[in-house]
Amino acid sequence: MGDMTTDPRQFLAWLYQSIPLTSAMQIERLEYDGQVLELHVPLAPNVNDKGTGFGGSISALATLAGWCLTTLYLRGQGLDCDVVIADAHQSYKAPNNSAFFARVCLPDQSQLDHLTDRIAERGRGRLDLQIDVLCDGQLTFVMQGRYVAIKR
Amino acid sequence: MGDMTTDPRQFLAWLYQSIPLTSAMQIERLEYDGQVLELHVPLAPNVNDKGTGFGGSISALATLAGWCLTTLYLRGQGLDCDVVIADAHQSYKAPNNSAFFARVCLPDQSQLDHLTDRIAERGRGRLDLQIDVLCDGQLTFVMQGRYVAIKR
Repeated sequence: MGDMTTDPRQFLAWLYQSIPLTSAMQIERLEYDGQVLELHVPLAPNVNDKGTGFGGSISALATLAGWCLTTLYLRGQGLDCDVVIADAHQSYKAPNNSAFFARVCLPDQSQLDHLTDRIAERGRGRLDLQIDVLCDGQLTFVMQGRYVAIKR
Repeated sequence: MGDMTTDPRQFLAWLYQSIPLTSAMQIERLEYDGQVLELHVPLAPNVNDKGTGFGGSISALATLAGWCLTTLYLRGQGLDCDVVIADAHQSYKAPNNSAFFARVCLPDQSQLDHLTDRIAERGRGRLDLQIDVLCDGQLTFVMQGRYVAIKR
């Protein structure tokens, strides 16, 4: 993505083109205000045999949300990086009975500075994020994810 | 799924119908010999922006593999259970550069007996599984997942 866009609509359109599963999941809204990012999906394409959210979809959505936030934050800093997930701990709290969304917030400034300092010094850095999944106002899933950014 | 099938082909056909994301991921083969279960996918529908396996697809495939093994094992024991994932720890080791698959083995008999005893006594039990993802003979991802089975 040569243009390094940070526009949520353009970024979502690019995700659809680049990562086929995002289109299969029908991610219908990406919101990002420079601090908090949300990815919203309808239930139907992400349902399981019990009529609730499929664990694989929930896991994929949360994994993607942290990746999007890391990528968009770094672009906002003028940094063109490959971002990959290194590890994750996931806890499923409750079923998703209707449309659900993942939400992730940037951590405090010292961690962001550490990330960009490491990228400047060593060409790579890491960011630890907590990604929540919510449905009908209830927290249904929590993930701690570690993302690694490598300068292109 | 009224018929409690443990036939891998029938079970995969049912997955396609019941969990739309499994069809989007084009899971093309489910192998199960009563001990080891594998789920195979091509790269194209599961690719990311870098041309390697999308983390969300890898995570979803591994999550599903453990779920399938738990469900099929219990069916083989004549137990009709709802199976859900409770939590997972995931570690991404290397990129998947071509078709990849998830592999999961039943744990030792004492853990399986514990599971079925608990289901008999309390109507629910748990199973801890390690799910590996492999590509081109290399281990690319490891997940420890805890699954909970609830008697229907």
